Amino acid sequence: MEQVRATEIRGGATRMSLGGRPLRDIGEFALLEQIARVAERPEPSSRLKLGIGDDAAVWEPRPHRWLVVSSDTLVERVHFRLDWTDWESLGHKALAVNLSDLAAMGARPWLALVALGLRGSERDQEIMAFYRGMRRLADRFRVEIVGGDLSSSPQAVTITVTVIGDGPNDPQGLLTRSAAQPGDWIGVTGPLGLAAAGLRIYERDLRLLDGSPVMQEAYNRPCPRVREGLLLRRCGVRAAMDISDGLFGDLPKMCQQSHVSAVVDLFAIPIPNAVKWAFDDWQDVALRTGEDYELLFTAPPPIFERVCTVFARAGLRPPYRIGEVIPCGEEEPQLFVRNVLGRIEPVIARGYSHFSSA
Amino acid sequence: MEQVRATEIRGGATRMSLGGRPLRDIGEFALLEQIARVAERPEPSSRLKLGIGDDAAVWEPRPHRWLVVSSDTLVERVHFRLDWTDWESLGHKALAVNLSDLAAMGARPWLALVALGLRGSERDQEIMAFYRGMRRLADRFRVEIVGGDLSSSPQAVTITVTVIGDGPNDPQGLLTRSAAQPGDWIGVTGPLGLAAAGLRIYERDLRLLDGSPVMQEAYNRPCPRVREGLLLRRCGVRAAMDISDGLFGDLPKMCQQSHVSAVVDLFAIPIPNAVKWAFDDWQDVALRTGEDYELLFTAPPPIFERVCTVFARAGLRPPYRIGEVIPCGEEEPQLFVRNVLGRIEPVIARGYSHFSSA
Repeated sequence: MEQVRATEIRGGATRMSLGGRPLRDIGEFALLEQIARVAERPEPSSRLKLGIGDDAAVWEPRPHRWLVVSSDTLVERVHFRLDWTDWESLGHKALAVNLSDLAAMGARPWLALVALGLRGSERDQEIMAFYRGMRRLADRFRVEIVGGDLSSSPQAVTITVTVIGDGPNDPQGLLTRSAAQPGDWIGVTGPLGLAAAGLRIYERDLRLLDGSPVMQEAYNRPCPRVREGLLLRRCGVRAAMDISDGLFGDLPKMCQQSHVSAVVDLFAIPIPNAVKWAFDDWQDVALRTGEDYELLFTAPPPIFERVCTVFARAGLRPPYRIGEVIPCGEEEPQLFVRNVLGRIEPVIARGYSHFSSA
Repeated sequence: MEQVRATEIRGGATRMSLGGRPLRDIGEFALLEQIARVAERPEPSSRLKLGIGDDAAVWEPRPHRWLVVSSDTLVERVHFRLDWTDWESLGHKALAVNLSDLAAMGARPWLALVALGLRGSERDQEIMAFYRGMRRLADRFRVEIVGGDLSSSPQAVTITVTVIGDGPNDPQGLLTRSAAQPGDWIGVTGPLGLAAAGLRIYERDLRLLDGSPVMQEAYNRPCPRVREGLLLRRCGVRAAMDISDGLFGDLPKMCQQSHVSAVVDLFAIPIPNAVKWAFDDWQDVALRTGEDYELLFTAPPPIFERVCTVFARAGLRPPYRIGEVIPCGEEEPQLFVRNVLGRIEPVIARGYSHFSSA
């Protein structure tokens, strides 16, 4: 029952290279810019309000209705390790990082689609635990989990979650990375560094005298700031993003897209003492590693104060004010820190970037 | 600059197994049923019209507006091999298989989100070719490509595309797998087996005397039947799916979900002579391997005839009638074939399934 009339010739074609540079010499962000040029139509539909480059894309299916969509992939041994987390936490985290993208836009999430690539050696109970963790988080925000594409992926478990939500009637009300204005105060919705410390603990297999379960939990089960994002938008905030690559990796992206500079008070950044106590290089851990999924936003002082009041009234932790936005004029946007003595120094922007070793 | 107060203890925890059976003993479809039970809320929102189990999920963001969403992952060496395809074709195919899911629902696609996991050794020109291939296909159906999540995936390139479209004002009008009725005729929108033959040619490194480029093209650049799906719906067809796992793998799924049986005329299935000529086991190649992405649908004879007229008027190939739906009564749904002598025999349902070797 084999082919009889087909001739077999082993060896075969060598494929011509298309040329170009390897991605690891280019880095994630430069590549994204190139992709945007090729993938986007020269005259995109007027229904598309925000394409590649922000936390999520915004699309107008009908006049005055805004859909906000975002997709993120987690790859085994790149984004997670199965000996560092359990399946239920993994389900939580896979959804959380995507909800965080919608939170960063001030959108309300409705649907989550899950595409899983599995080795085949997993147990069914593990996959059920994964979906249980995902659903528990989904229930908190009344998000429906739909679709469950499964495929085999023998080399590494891969998880891609797509979330769909809706925005305000007026798209101007959405939070974007490009709306920071000189004079704005800079805020974050929670402390930074716990999740990164958790990652470090796993990476180096450390045992801390205290604090380590809290850090590991922060790393494994981040809490997407969905309510905070919605309230920020309703208070009139315009500029926000989520901190996934570390404050010193993400704030420069916002400066770049808004064409402004920023000064951050080093001593005002909320870094838990447990992190400072455990690691001598706590600044790198807390500010360049990421994984916090707190929201970073900027707003004029009166709006910032309104946010503090509204958050407190809603039972949420008021945001921390960590610095201010300044004009960059003709210069390249730049991030500065003000140390405890009041001295201002430039910061080398660097956070987590895929492909590049820099 | 290393941690000084953190104690390092190598070795560490052994993780308790959650028990259960390995996926490869369960198979993709039984697992999907388990997942649906865990992932879906006991009382799903009334906005969710169709969850896990069909080609796509259907959601009602506002009364009488239907969103149709679908997500699919391609994994290197499972779904594609980079020595069998070029990057531009890969971009085409990654979008095509997702558009096909929407076509199978009779929905109009609007947006595509792309999440890429890359090794890092790829060249930027290759990634641009990927997006170019994707955009050329997207342009044909006026689909916008938004979002471009990138992450590193050192073991295998992974591609997850999510497409979002909209359906008719009346969700009853959508095509589903569960709407086949006894008395319906069964149709397919195009010939079966070319793509599977292309895959076989790659797998065995064959050289055919003729036909091989057509087969390889069919495998690498399937054409999603978006216009056909829209027209089927407008003609009043209710039951459809796309053939991705082979007719003998997919038609039984439709029978199962519609609780009907089906008789297929073996000689009426449009299998190109080139496939029959090249492979002695052409039935297995054409009917159990899949990759065709033609639409399979059922409709009462008057509607089927209307479809033929409407397709011809639209310049599309009229569908092939390959059999009919029959009641299954109290029995399990079953697929039969009628051979050229008129003898009817049951078919063992088997198409491509992830995880299981069966």
